[in-house]
Amino acid sequence: MRGKFITLEGGEGCGKSTQAKLLCEYLQAKGIETVLTKEPGGTEEGAVLRRLLVTGDKDKFDAVTECLLYYADRRQHLSKLVWPALEQGKWVISDRYADSTEAYQYYGYDKRIDYATLQNMYKIVAGEFKPDLTLILDMPPEVGMRRSFAKAADMATQELRFESRQIDFHHNLRRGFLEIAKREPQRCAVVNADTTIEILQQNIRQIIQERLGV
Amino acid sequence: MRGKFITLEGGEGCGKSTQAKLLCEYLQAKGIETVLTKEPGGTEEGAVLRRLLVTGDKDKFDAVTECLLYYADRRQHLSKLVWPALEQGKWVISDRYADSTEAYQYYGYDKRIDYATLQNMYKIVAGEFKPDLTLILDMPPEVGMRRSFAKAADMATQELRFESRQIDFHHNLRRGFLEIAKREPQRCAVVNADTTIEILQQNIRQIIQERLGV
Repeated sequence: MRGKFITLEGGEGCGKSTQAKLLCEYLQAKGIETVLTKEPGGTEEGAVLRRLLVTGDKDKFDAVTECLLYYADRRQHLSKLVWPALEQGKWVISDRYADSTEAYQYYGYDKRIDYATLQNMYKIVAGEFKPDLTLILDMPPEVGMRRSFAKAADMATQELRFESRQIDFHHNLRRGFLEIAKREPQRCAVVNADTTIEILQQNIRQIIQERLGV
Repeated sequence: MRGKFITLEGGEGCGKSTQAKLLCEYLQAKGIETVLTKEPGGTEEGAVLRRLLVTGDKDKFDAVTECLLYYADRRQHLSKLVWPALEQGKWVISDRYADSTEAYQYYGYDKRIDYATLQNMYKIVAGEFKPDLTLILDMPPEVGMRRSFAKAADMATQELRFESRQIDFHHNLRRGFLEIAKREPQRCAVVNADTTIEILQQNIRQIIQERLGV
């Protein structure tokens, strides 16, 4: 039987990576072979694209270039990792997927790319394929940004290309994710991420149970 | 006045780079400010994409990923270098442009990507923009491949991802470029490249004179 594809989405510092890891461990403990991955950079070649995308000057790419790079990374990710794993019956959890591109490029930057072009790129790359479940981790951007900068300082990371945007950007982003969830309620579930790691994971597991029967 | 955009196309080892350089010197000597550039890798970020595209295992990308990467490189090249230069009245000579993507991905690999998808990507990236003149340097693939391998041995280059394809691929490629020229005779000129550097440059200059009045 084909595996399930679960994506985690949300703004900077909302705890996606931690929750994805905990969810993966939970599913594995339930006996489900599960692959934990991420976008951008879920593949060897994608890691090169990730470096291009998340480091350096925030204005180095225009909207079209940036979206094409995200979609090139996505196609490599789907064709080399996600689709083969699902075919083998494994479940796949991805820390970000296409909703992030839409939220950042369309809502975050206030429609700097048109929606039809984004949909067009999605069709080229993924056809009719969609996640079975998308968890949208929601919290006030101020909280997320504080967390994200604290983590960056700890890890001495250079991955701050998006954090360097103004707070308005992050408010738009949040609204974007909520719009997407409203448009596709069957695929998406919004979870309040402004809580502890443990409570958030509990709530996520409950959604997994309700939606995917695990 | 807006500058002219001239592209050089053709298979491996046909002498594009040498001819592009000589043509640039010629135009500059005529008092035309001319920029010499190339695809992939005409920009700083594009250089990273070039390394991804021209080195490594020939099967590491599927057709869609590979085309998206070429088109991301192309968008960056157009938006950051080609369009601004043309706006400033400069002429731009590019060693490869979109016809290479079509010839390699569609004809070379025998239609592994559909034509509509390629056209779709071109529209997203360049809209209605096209080169003012495209020079297609034509020669038997056997001759070009011999040259290309000899040059690679000299330069100890790793850029052999396409040279490693079978000779059939390169015959398809040549046919592809000739098809493109036949479809768009007003934009394209085919030049016999199986001759000396000097004669080929002479013939190119004559075409420039006839088509662009220089």
